[in-house]
Formats: sequence, structure tokens, C-alpha cells
Amino acid sequence: MLEELKKKVLEANLSLVEYKLVLFTWGNVSAIDRETGLVVIKPSGVDYAAMTADDMVVMTLDGKKAEGELNPSSDTPTHLELYRRFPDIGGIAHTHSTFAVAFAQAAKDIACYGTTHADFAYGSVPCTRDLTAEEIRTDYELNTGRVIAECFSEREIDPANVPAVLVHSHGPFTWGKDAAQAAKNSAVLEEVAKMAYLSENLQAREASKAIQKKHYFRKHGKDAYYGQK
Amino acid sequence: MLEELKKKVLEANLSLVEYKLVLFTWGNVSAIDRETGLVVIKPSGVDYAAMTADDMVVMTLDGKKAEGELNPSSDTPTHLELYRRFPDIGGIAHTHSTFAVAFAQAAKDIACYGTTHADFAYGSVPCTRDLTAEEIRTDYELNTGRVIAECFSEREIDPANVPAVLVHSHGPFTWGKDAAQAAKNSAVLEEVAKMAYLSENLQAREASKAIQKKHYFRKHGKDAYYGQK
Amino acid sequence: MLEELKKKVLEANLSLVEYKLVLFTWGNVSAIDRETGLVVIKPSGVDYAAMTADDMVVMTLDGKKAEGELNPSSDTPTHLELYRRFPDIGGIAHTHSTFAVAFAQAAKDIACYGTTHADFAYGSVPCTRDLTAEEIRTDYELNTGRVIAECFSEREIDPANVPAVLVHSHGPFTWGKDAAQAAKNSAVLEEVAKMAYLSENLQAREASKAIQKKHYFRKHGKDAYYGQK
Amino acid sequence: MLEELKKKVLEANLSLVEYKLVLFTWGNVSAIDRETGLVVIKPSGVDYAAMTADDMVVMTLDGKKAEGELNPSSDTPTHLELYRRFPDIGGIAHTHSTFAVAFAQAAKDIACYGTTHADFAYGSVPCTRDLTAEEIRTDYELNTGRVIAECFSEREIDPANVPAVLVHSHGPFTWGKDAAQAAKNSAVLEEVAKMAYLSENLQAREASKAIQKKHYFRKHGKDAYYGQK
Repeated sequence: MLEELKKKVLEANLSLVEYKLVLFTWGNVSAIDRETGLVVIKPSGVDYAAMTADDMVVMTLDGKKAEGELNPSSDTPTHLELYRRFPDIGGIAHTHSTFAVAFAQAAKDIACYGTTHADFAYGSVPCTRDLTAEEIRTDYELNTGRVIAECFSEREIDPANVPAVLVHSHGPFTWGKDAAQAAKNSAVLEEVAKMAYLSENLQAREASKAIQKKHYFRKHGKDAYYGQK
Repeated sequence: MLEELKKKVLEANLSLVEYKLVLFTWGNVSAIDRETGLVVIKPSGVDYAAMTADDMVVMTLDGKKAEGELNPSSDTPTHLELYRRFPDIGGIAHTHSTFAVAFAQAAKDIACYGTTHADFAYGSVPCTRDLTAEEIRTDYELNTGRVIAECFSEREIDPANVPAVLVHSHGPFTWGKDAAQAAKNSAVLEEVAKMAYLSENLQAREASKAIQKKHYFRKHGKDAYYGQK
Repeated sequence: MLEELKKKVLEANLSLVEYKLVLFTWGNVSAIDRETGLVVIKPSGVDYAAMTADDMVVMTLDGKKAEGELNPSSDTPTHLELYRRFPDIGGIAHTHSTFAVAFAQAAKDIACYGTTHADFAYGSVPCTRDLTAEEIRTDYELNTGRVIAECFSEREIDPANVPAVLVHSHGPFTWGKDAAQAAKNSAVLEEVAKMAYLSENLQAREASKAIQKKHYFRKHGKDAYYGQK
Repeated sequence: MLEELKKKVLEANLSLVEYKLVLFTWGNVSAIDRETGLVVIKPSGVDYAAMTADDMVVMTLDGKKAEGELNPSSDTPTHLELYRRFPDIGGIAHTHSTFAVAFAQAAKDIACYGTTHADFAYGSVPCTRDLTAEEIRTDYELNTGRVIAECFSEREIDPANVPAVLVHSHGPFTWGKDAAQAAKNSAVLEEVAKMAYLSENLQAREASKAIQKKHYFRKHGKDAYYGQK
């Protein structure tokens, strides 16, 4: 089932390697078929070089395996929670990319220091609170998804405008309309994080709201004029 | 029209990828034919891998499309303003290269800490003031060009001696006698910015005026003795 | 003798190059055959490009050459001491990878700032004390091994849970069940060290014990649920 | 004349590109034939990709061109002065490698923080004083060589033990028994400089004299025991 989607999810997983965002088997990408509510995700701990579309695992939105020989990524419950809470997203990527992880480990938002960031996200990329010992002990991966959703809800951030989050002490999740865009957003986030790291070392201050708004909305939404029709 | 120039502009755009200065579709290079006043520029948001010389867009110096199916780069009005204000330049490149952007986001000039910089530019590479909310709201890209020209005019910098600028909260523009040199200057600027970043972290002070002058003028101008005749 | 093991040790040495962890002839990997107590190790100062399985040197556990034309790595006595003191390890790798060396040169443990580290090691990767002038003068490489073992013993660290150490003023040694895993752990350590360096520059604090424990034990030991069976 | 030496000098120049130490035409390597006192050096400002052995320029030790169509590197007088003042060296390399330049721009020695440095040089890699305005104005490149020699003489550093120097506000020169070793030393210096930069950011202190001595002399001189006979 979902053979076309499996191919796309495989390709998006391989693009993480091409973007130089992953070491060994780290990282995972998934996509959802919104009509059936089925999610296709990378298997856990399998070499990128040996992975085929048939290795992709199909899950129901409530966490049952619908198809596949292999175990799904151990981060699957986080992906599923995000698909349930953010109904407009179609793909999710998770990496341990170096600079994004550094911000996550420092428990810091990535503030918007300039137009590279504003072209990608409107406002800071938030870092979640840390999970409690209890949330870690039971249903850890599910609670990771819950804490992400809580962060966006409490800070009133629209996941359509900020397609990325940093999980405290852990690393980034990004999303998009499909698996390819989610993976691509991981690459952009890493570059934005590197620029923010260097900018903070040079004592940068946040970009003005005017420039943030201008750049975000010249690329996104109904008044966008970047790119081709 | 301008088929030869289109090829050169395409090649200069591709050289940005080769120099590892761009992610995805970021960055753009243009060139001007000073006889006709026509400007050839990269289309907006097109993949580098798929781009051909025919995709290049031809613009008049006052901003009308003279030829081309695609939308020109959204930064076109900045390029055109620079061609109007700096009558001796023949090519312009714009990137979001990492270290140059960090200085732009920190709103800092790149001071001349040594001979690598002095071989390239005579004195600091300036960072512009930030645009006002009004300048951002209307004719943003045109105002970006105006603010660059204002910066060089008010600080009495000769664009022939400093072939680069940082736009506040944004990133670098570089120029040269043609598209290839403009793109090459983007690569040199990025390396100079990286060295300046590291040097500032090691508490460097600006190089002496004597060494700055010596290195710049052994490579540039009528008394240059670097290279072959 | 041990032709199969020699091939594996050669491959693990070459993987250091592939992981971009070594310049020129720096770095070395060994493996032990626990049945015979024989250790296979890279020869000293030989180019990676020219090295063959036959160049690998076979040593007895008490430091006599059992087979081989070439001199073994000058770090051989360190490897042998570690095999004697850590009876469960099967392979050892030593590199001068950049960020791990920086921590070693700064005489700092690599604290656990997040899950990338916790997936790899349970708790800090320790840095040894510095060797005394006397320990350096006589049996330097053997004493290096002794100081590593002393560090783990005094700080009650289990080498099964922390497969890496930093030798003061020097650099990292890593180990694993075989040569390939030892080399792979060198690559993971370098990435973890880079993330720790960046995190410290962003004023990170150590990750909670709860998250450290969760991540280490979801990948290691009897209750692990990461990867495939 | 000196066809064999020209080939070796060409190869050493190309190795700078392979070691990723140069952008565009930056950097140059030379070698001396001590019997005839003739020096072979890279031409000025020629593309590495197009350069052939025949393009190498032959100079007498007192600065006259003995053979070659092209202008020699503009740094030639620096090379010649070093060959005159350091009679045991056979090759010289000059690059603008990033981290070594950062130290030169910050006017800082590269202190010995660990064994990677001690394997390469015994004690700090010194940074020269800055040239006076007068020394810059007349015979600049010759004076650069004089200031290097003065630095080694006044600080009583043996160029056999420290095969590298940083020229204030400029960058590194390295040397060795031949052109290949000089170029290789540029690669090692850059890695050592990067490690020193990171170590200083982690508040490292200099390595003990005992470990510096041990590592340098286990690789160099009559009691060396690293590598093969």
C-alpha cells in the first residue's frame, strides 16, 4: 500500500544524507496520507545505503503498524502526535544537525537575526521546555510530541508560519507540506542556526519586525512575489 | 538578444554553487551591457541544476522586462539601482554566504585585519544602516540599492576600491568588471569574513594603513606588480 | 595468522579516513583475538593509501611482536594496556580528531549536554589527569594506558557505558566490541565534542539525569528498543 | 634546467589545493637546488588548474631570473631571503590558510597546547613583529623575509625544530627538506592552528614541557622511534 508515498519518504530520508545533516543512521522523515490517515516512516536503525522503499513502515495515526517487516523509527510516536495536533502538515523530518542541536542543548530559541531566517520562518524558532522525569519515564516519545504542541499552543505560534522546533536537550523537528519539504526545511534550519550562532558571537540583535514581516510574506502566503507562478 | 552575456551570467550563477556559497535557489548574479543599458539576471526561485542560459531574464535599466519567460530575481531592483549609481561596474552577485551574513546580521563592518582582505578591498567592507519601516514597506528592493549607494556616498568609499557591501540584517552584495568577477568576489568576501570572525575572537586589531595600502595597490591600479602582464 | 582479523583492522583504519578524522598517517585502530590473546594493529607512520592487510602487525598481549615486517604503531603499549585492563572490549581506535583534541588540550571532560551524547555514552566522557614528568620519561605509551585505566577506576566509570576517553594534552581513544565499532565511536565522539563545544559557547547546562538515562538505555542493554532485533 | 625539480615544485603547489589550503591562485611553493643555488618557484597569479611544470620560474639566490617566461610569485624575495638565512631548508610554502591567518591577524603565536602540535614543532610557532611603514614602502617582500629571520634569531628558535612562522597581519610560511614537506607542513600547521583556536576558546593552558619534548623527539632527531626505519 501507498507505494508512491513510500518512494517519496525514502527519497526524503536520503536527502538528509545529501544535505550532510546526518551521521550513520541518525535522523528520520515521515509523511502522512491525509485521506486514509496512514503515516509512512523510516525503519529504526537501518543503514541509509541499504534502505529501500519496501523497508518503509506504514502506521495508523493512533500508533498501530499497518504494514512493514521492520520496526518503525523509535521517534514514531512523536511524529504521530504532530500529525494529530498540526492537521495541515504533510511531512515531518527529525535530525541531529550540529548547530540546531547546539541551540537545543543550550535550551535557546533561535531568534530571527536577519532575512535568511525570515525567508524561512516568521519569528523565533522556539525551543520547548524540558520534559519532566515522569514524562521521560512513561511514553517518552509521545510526550515529546505533546511538549512540542504545547509549546506552539502556549506561545501562540502557528506551525504554518514556523515549520520547525527545537526539543530541549535533544534537537530539531521540521515539517512541511510533504516529506521533501520537511527534509529541505531541516537543511535551511541548520544553516539559519549556524548563522544565528555566529551572529550571537558578534553580539547581533534581533532583526526589526518590519524586515521580518517583509521577507516572510514576500515568499509565503497570498501576497508572495518570490519565485515563479 | 545578448546570447553571449546570458551564457556568462548563467556560468557566474553556477559558480556560486561551485564556490559553496549558496543553498538551494539562494543567490543571484547579473551583468550589464553598458552599450545598450540592458541587464541580464537570474530568474527568481529556479533550481540551479535545471537552469539554462535561455532562462536568464533581460531587463532595461529602468526596470522593464525586455526579454524572458520567467520572473527575474526578486532582488532585481537592487541590482538595477547599483548599475545606475555605480557606472563603472559590469556585474553584481548577491549571496547569503554564512560568515558575511553573520556580520550583516550583527550590523558590523568587516574591518581589515590583514593582507588577505587588503588584497581584495582597500579599507573596511561597510555594513549599511537598517532600512526604515517605510523603506521596507514600499519599494523595498529598490530602497535596498539606494541605501547601499547612500552608504558608499556618505562614507566616501569608492566602489572601485571596495567591491562589496553588507546590507544590514540581510547579507552581502559584491560587484566587479563582469559577472564572473562579481561571483568570485563573493567567494573572496566569504573567506575574508570568516578570517575576520576568527580574528575578532582572538582579539585582533586592524592592520596598519601602511600594510593595507601596500597590499591593495600591489594588486590593483597602475602600479600593480602582482600576476602576469 | 589472523588473516580475517587483519582485514577487519585494515578496513577500520581506512574508515577513519572516510569519516574525515585523520590527516596523513595520524590515527590507528587495533583489535584483539580474545581466544589467543593476540592483538592486530596498524603499522607506524605508513600511508593509508598504500596500506594492505599484510602490513598489519600482530602483537602478544605482553608486548612482543608475533608477526609482521613493520614496526607497530608507536601507541601500541597504550592499546595493550587497555586490552589488559578492560577485558570486555574487542577493538580500540585512536585519532587526533579536531574537537575531541580541543577538549583534551583544555583538559576538560565532555559533559553530556543532550541526547546525541546520551545515545552514545552514559555520563561525561572523562579527560585523564596529566602524566607526570617521570611517567612521560619512561614507558610513556604504557603509562598513557595506565592513566586511562586509573581514570575509569577512580571515577568508577564502566568502560562498557562510556566507550571513550580524552588523554590530557593529547586526544581521544575509543573502543567497542570490534575494530569497526571502535572506529565508528571515534566519529560519534567527534560530532558529540563539536556539539558540546558549540553548546558551551551558548552557555548550555548539562542535560537532566532522567533524559541521559532514558536515551542511553533505549539504545543499550537489555531494555533497548532502538533499531531492529 | 632543473626539470625534475620543476615537476616536484608543481606537484607541491598542486598539493596545496588538494589539502584545501588555497582559494583561487593564492599560495605558492618553491624549492632550492643547494648545489647550484638556484630556486624554482610558482609563477605569480596563474590558475592552479592550468599550471604546468614549464611555467615554474628559476631564480638565482640573489634574485635574478635564470629561466622562465612568466613573472615569479610576488613573494619571491621572501623565499630567497629564507633560503639565504636558513641554509638547511630545501623547500618553502606560503598560504593564506584560514586559522593560521587568524592567528597572524591577531598577532599571536600559536602556543603548544598538546601533542598534535608537539609532533610537528618544538615550542610555539612564533608570530613576527609588524613591519614598519618604511619596511613596507621599500623592498616589502625582502623585508618580510628579514623580519622572519630576525624573529627566529632574536627568540633563539631553531628553524629545524619549528618549521613554520606567522607573518604579522599576513599569514603563514612553512618549510622543510623539500617542496613536498614544506607544503605538507602547511596542512599540519592549519590543523594545529584550528585546534589551538578551539582550545583557547575552552581556556586551555600550554602543554607541559615534558610532554612537548617527549612528542617532538619521539618523531624527530636521532632518538626518534615513530614510523619505519
